[in-house]
Amino acid sequence: MGMTLAQKILKDHLVCGEMIPGQEIGIRIDQTLTQDATGTMAYLEFEAMGVPRVKTERSVAYIDHNTLQNGFENADDHRFIGSVCKKHGIYFSRPGNGICHQVHLERFGIPGKTLIGSDSHTPTGGGIGMIAIGAGGMDVAVAMGGGTYYITCPKIVKVELTGKLQPWVAAKDVILEVLRRLSVKGGVGKIIEYCGEGVKTLSVPERATITNMGAELGATTSIFPSDENTRAFLKAQQREEDYRPLAADPDAVYDEELVIDLSALVPLAACPHSPDNVKSLDEIGSMKIDQVCIGSCTNSSLLDMLKVAHILKGKTVHPDVSLSIAPGSKQVLNMLAENGALAVMIDAGARILESACGPCIGMGQSPNSGGISLRTFNRNFEGRSGTKDGQIYLVSPETAAASALTGVLTDPRTLGEMPEFALPDVFTVRDNMIVPPVPAEEMDSVEVLRGPNIKPFPVSEALPDSISAKCSLKVGDNITTDHIMPAGAKILPLRSNIPKISEYCFAVCDESFHDRALELKQSIIVGGSNYGQGSSREHAALAPLYLGVKAVIVKSFARIHMANLVNAGILPMTFADEKDYDRIDQMDELSMENLIQQLKDGDTVTVTNRTKGFRFDVNVSLSDRQKDMLIAGGLLNYTRNNA
Amino acid sequence: MGMTLAQKILKDHLVCGEMIPGQEIGIRIDQTLTQDATGTMAYLEFEAMGVPRVKTERSVAYIDHNTLQNGFENADDHRFIGSVCKKHGIYFSRPGNGICHQVHLERFGIPGKTLIGSDSHTPTGGGIGMIAIGAGGMDVAVAMGGGTYYITCPKIVKVELTGKLQPWVAAKDVILEVLRRLSVKGGVGKIIEYCGEGVKTLSVPERATITNMGAELGATTSIFPSDENTRAFLKAQQREEDYRPLAADPDAVYDEELVIDLSALVPLAACPHSPDNVKSLDEIGSMKIDQVCIGSCTNSSLLDMLKVAHILKGKTVHPDVSLSIAPGSKQVLNMLAENGALAVMIDAGARILESACGPCIGMGQSPNSGGISLRTFNRNFEGRSGTKDGQIYLVSPETAAASALTGVLTDPRTLGEMPEFALPDVFTVRDNMIVPPVPAEEMDSVEVLRGPNIKPFPVSEALPDSISAKCSLKVGDNITTDHIMPAGAKILPLRSNIPKISEYCFAVCDESFHDRALELKQSIIVGGSNYGQGSSREHAALAPLYLGVKAVIVKSFARIHMANLVNAGILPMTFADEKDYDRIDQMDELSMENLIQQLKDGDTVTVTNRTKGFRFDVNVSLSDRQKDMLIAGGLLNYTRNNA
Repeated sequence: MGMTLAQKILKDHLVCGEMIPGQEIGIRIDQTLTQDATGTMAYLEFEAMGVPRVKTERSVAYIDHNTLQNGFENADDHRFIGSVCKKHGIYFSRPGNGICHQVHLERFGIPGKTLIGSDSHTPTGGGIGMIAIGAGGMDVAVAMGGGTYYITCPKIVKVELTGKLQPWVAAKDVILEVLRRLSVKGGVGKIIEYCGEGVKTLSVPERATITNMGAELGATTSIFPSDENTRAFLKAQQREEDYRPLAADPDAVYDEELVIDLSALVPLAACPHSPDNVKSLDEIGSMKIDQVCIGSCTNSSLLDMLKVAHILKGKTVHPDVSLSIAPGSKQVLNMLAENGALAVMIDAGARILESACGPCIGMGQSPNSGGISLRTFNRNFEGRSGTKDGQIYLVSPETAAASALTGVLTDPRTLGEMPEFALPDVFTVRDNMIVPPVPAEEMDSVEVLRGPNIKPFPVSEALPDSISAKCSLKVGDNITTDHIMPAGAKILPLRSNIPKISEYCFAVCDESFHDRALELKQSIIVGGSNYGQGSSREHAALAPLYLGVKAVIVKSFARIHMANLVNAGILPMTFADEKDYDRIDQMDELSMENLIQQLKDGDTVTVTNRTKGFRFDVNVSLSDRQKDMLIAGGLLNYTRNNA
Repeated sequence: MGMTLAQKILKDHLVCGEMIPGQEIGIRIDQTLTQDATGTMAYLEFEAMGVPRVKTERSVAYIDHNTLQNGFENADDHRFIGSVCKKHGIYFSRPGNGICHQVHLERFGIPGKTLIGSDSHTPTGGGIGMIAIGAGGMDVAVAMGGGTYYITCPKIVKVELTGKLQPWVAAKDVILEVLRRLSVKGGVGKIIEYCGEGVKTLSVPERATITNMGAELGATTSIFPSDENTRAFLKAQQREEDYRPLAADPDAVYDEELVIDLSALVPLAACPHSPDNVKSLDEIGSMKIDQVCIGSCTNSSLLDMLKVAHILKGKTVHPDVSLSIAPGSKQVLNMLAENGALAVMIDAGARILESACGPCIGMGQSPNSGGISLRTFNRNFEGRSGTKDGQIYLVSPETAAASALTGVLTDPRTLGEMPEFALPDVFTVRDNMIVPPVPAEEMDSVEVLRGPNIKPFPVSEALPDSISAKCSLKVGDNITTDHIMPAGAKILPLRSNIPKISEYCFAVCDESFHDRALELKQSIIVGGSNYGQGSSREHAALAPLYLGVKAVIVKSFARIHMANLVNAGILPMTFADEKDYDRIDQMDELSMENLIQQLKDGDTVTVTNRTKGFRFDVNVSLSDRQKDMLIAGGLLNYTRNNA
């Protein structure tokens, strides 16, 4: 039986598990990337593993999120990441060098390789034939340390592209059409694999637009074949040696299939407030607009920018519209400055922003109250723009630029004949803002630069054979991760500072918890049903780890939080008999003996309540891998031990 | 007796008063400018005057401060200002078009004219031979309404420039030398007038750097003659018709004199945390740096940028340094993009920021903790960068660029031979981002766009002949304007919303004051000595105005706050006998009869304490002009009545 392209790459990298959709598989990771908002914690976690040099083929740290830099924290983070890179053999893309996914595609992505990144739009790499998956910071840290990356083996959805896009209809319209058909939940547990004759009509940057925004389907990732267009792109990037042809077998079997006739597509827009709320421009009709933003990891390639410049040439942005343009990388910006396209944009009145994520992540350019903003980005969630009642429409660069001139939503097909836009034969390659790893002999002398807000990851110790500790907190049912570790403007800047952020741990339930837990040095939390529901934030496990929590005994767990506890080396236990919950009070002394053997022997551990003088059983329903992880003291220790 | 240039222009515009240093004079204002941070309130004040169309020769509104746009407020402010401009005959420079002073110099400044601007660096216009003065928003509103602008007639300081700058020594070093000699207080009550043979060696943009940063001397303004260099600049800006030659009489008499030999100057830097803490680079010695920022209204002209590009060409910014460059205007940015200089900067790794004030006003690019930042700006006050312990050095663009490459403070004279840098014969003039006033017949139909945070200026009524009101608040000595109207991140965004910001009025003294004052509808405040000291903020008068405060009776006033109360139409009164302070309690009913006649007859008004049943006298020590203003109900009403 033939294999799909995704299956081939996964199989090439399979470390453990069987490739049956729904089952856990472990894969080897060739490349990692981080951005600065998630990267600081990822590197603190990597440091905690004690691995001197990354074991991946290539790991790259990008600075693209916090580039406005209001306050000392951002610049401190950038310096910290830069110094960590030097210390541990990681490429460092300096602030101003561009958006991680755009730069990675240009300079690092290789067909057939696996990539995980601590950013949800990592699937951009699928445009060049990689298996590229967005992951948590700890996953990335583990992969850098040589550890296996575990995922649920995905189903494969075949999207067959036929025909060819009409003039002024764009790759963005292709992914908007996919979103219209499949919805934001349609890709969960699946890889979207593109094939068919239409693929040949799309350049690598166009394919990357499609795989990038595949993230909005909830998909594990999306992928395109690697073909002559891929070779041309890599050759123009002066790294043809990275090319290899890749495609699905002709008799590959897919779990689902979809056909899209490119010739039949029209310009589309995702209307407020969801990327799958897709309509044609005709359906939306005439609409006055206030703002246009062009850029983001979805649509900031040279090709996108050249089209925009062509549309703006000699014109002026409509007086009622603010148009901002953020080219995706230094390479793109540099080429636009060299070939005159940037001058054309400036002349027309575009506001040129630094090559970074910027307004896409709500970093600046918030629209006016109730303002209608057309954006070439990938998400239009309510409030994400920074303006609570902002009305965000996601469109192609062509639609965005055409509308910026008229002041109303405008179909770019009204622009008349479209010239041929082609990739250059040679991109301007100048990697002077990418700092390569230093030679091994220099790494030791590198000092890691920590600003006052950057504190080491809390130490997690191997599981002791017996634990005796007081119950520092007893809570009820449906405790969310927002109870455990609140977010908000005041707390978010502390995410690289576990000691400080821990002051807010459980503060909404009990303000005295932090001090009490620290005083007890080690303790156990007792809770009810559905403990840890809500956001997947790992800080809801890391703050308890820092505060000395050794075990959490509850009636039931939310799945992701339970996994996060295991990763942090905290025992997640459920009452064998829920009635025992009522027999424990806060500050009762609980003890467990012969713990490691009990874990190895089965899924039950006996606990003694020394204060009340009774024994009860708890369940520890984990895989052998997870138990080994707990015994090692969490995922980072486990990875280091196995490295 | 011959006259100085400044005296000639002032005399040409004299409306009232005698030109004797220290005496109040009133002058006619030809041009005004605003920026967006102060402009919103200035235009609310202008609206409150009810004048349909500005009466100046040219008024221009710029958007350059709040261009990062985190949150809806900024975009709302921009739209409000844009629509006010359309409604009232004002030029509107759209976001992205550049920094007010740079653009005004390029496109609007005219030798011999008077300009006031609601920004302290308005003296930039002195570089082209204007009397250009920084002023409060209400002063600008009044001037737009045709009102006279009042200043204390300044002394004139002659600065004679001899010789010629050595290669790589810059105009910035000239003003740093002046600051070194005169200090940040050295210019108070004075106009700094440049003359001598050395003037001919300086282009208009260089002169503007010097007059711009003259603000740091505390000077009223600074001015250069208008000569053949001025003609060349205006001709290159395609408006030679605005040129007229202007200079001091050969026998002009100055109050003070200073001679600076340009040939003897060396590269200088203002060290933390004051612009007059000036040392030579040699004196500072070797110093590792973390950040370099090039731009601001002081050093962002085309000439500055071309020098920077020359220094950066083919090199790479030092790996430990973040270099940002914000060209000063769309014209500058456009020309850099056209002539390849921008590509050179990008290639070297500079982070190109939007043409705006940016990091100079703490809008982004805050350095790392304790970071050393070289900036071509005009102010290095502690914390202004957004990083409390940031160490800011003010330097020339030449020093900044040279240091960005080496990573240490570097004397640009080590760069070797300096090529000739000359102004272009023709600047690229494209004013498509400056919206001109609409024809008069269209103005009526313009709708002013107010976001939810923009509320009309509070109505101030003509003084009634009798007032009877309760004492809503009694406070002690040394009340600051920070007590009356606190600032801070939470409150500052409300400065265009007097009703909302008034909720914080006196909140540090008495949280119930706001509600009580509103309930009383009108009331009187009683206070001790030195009332209203500290910041000059006019909101400390506007919030009480909104809350119905009719009079403030205290032992003594701080000068500026007393003037602000008069401008707001609130009676500033001092106890004739300070002991009467002790005889009044909060909520006592105080009344004054026959008020207007009493004010006209002299400086004393009799007040009756109806609650306690006694009478006492208060002094109202004001000029006739100020009394007329109070009777009219404040400066805006006064100006409208006299217009």
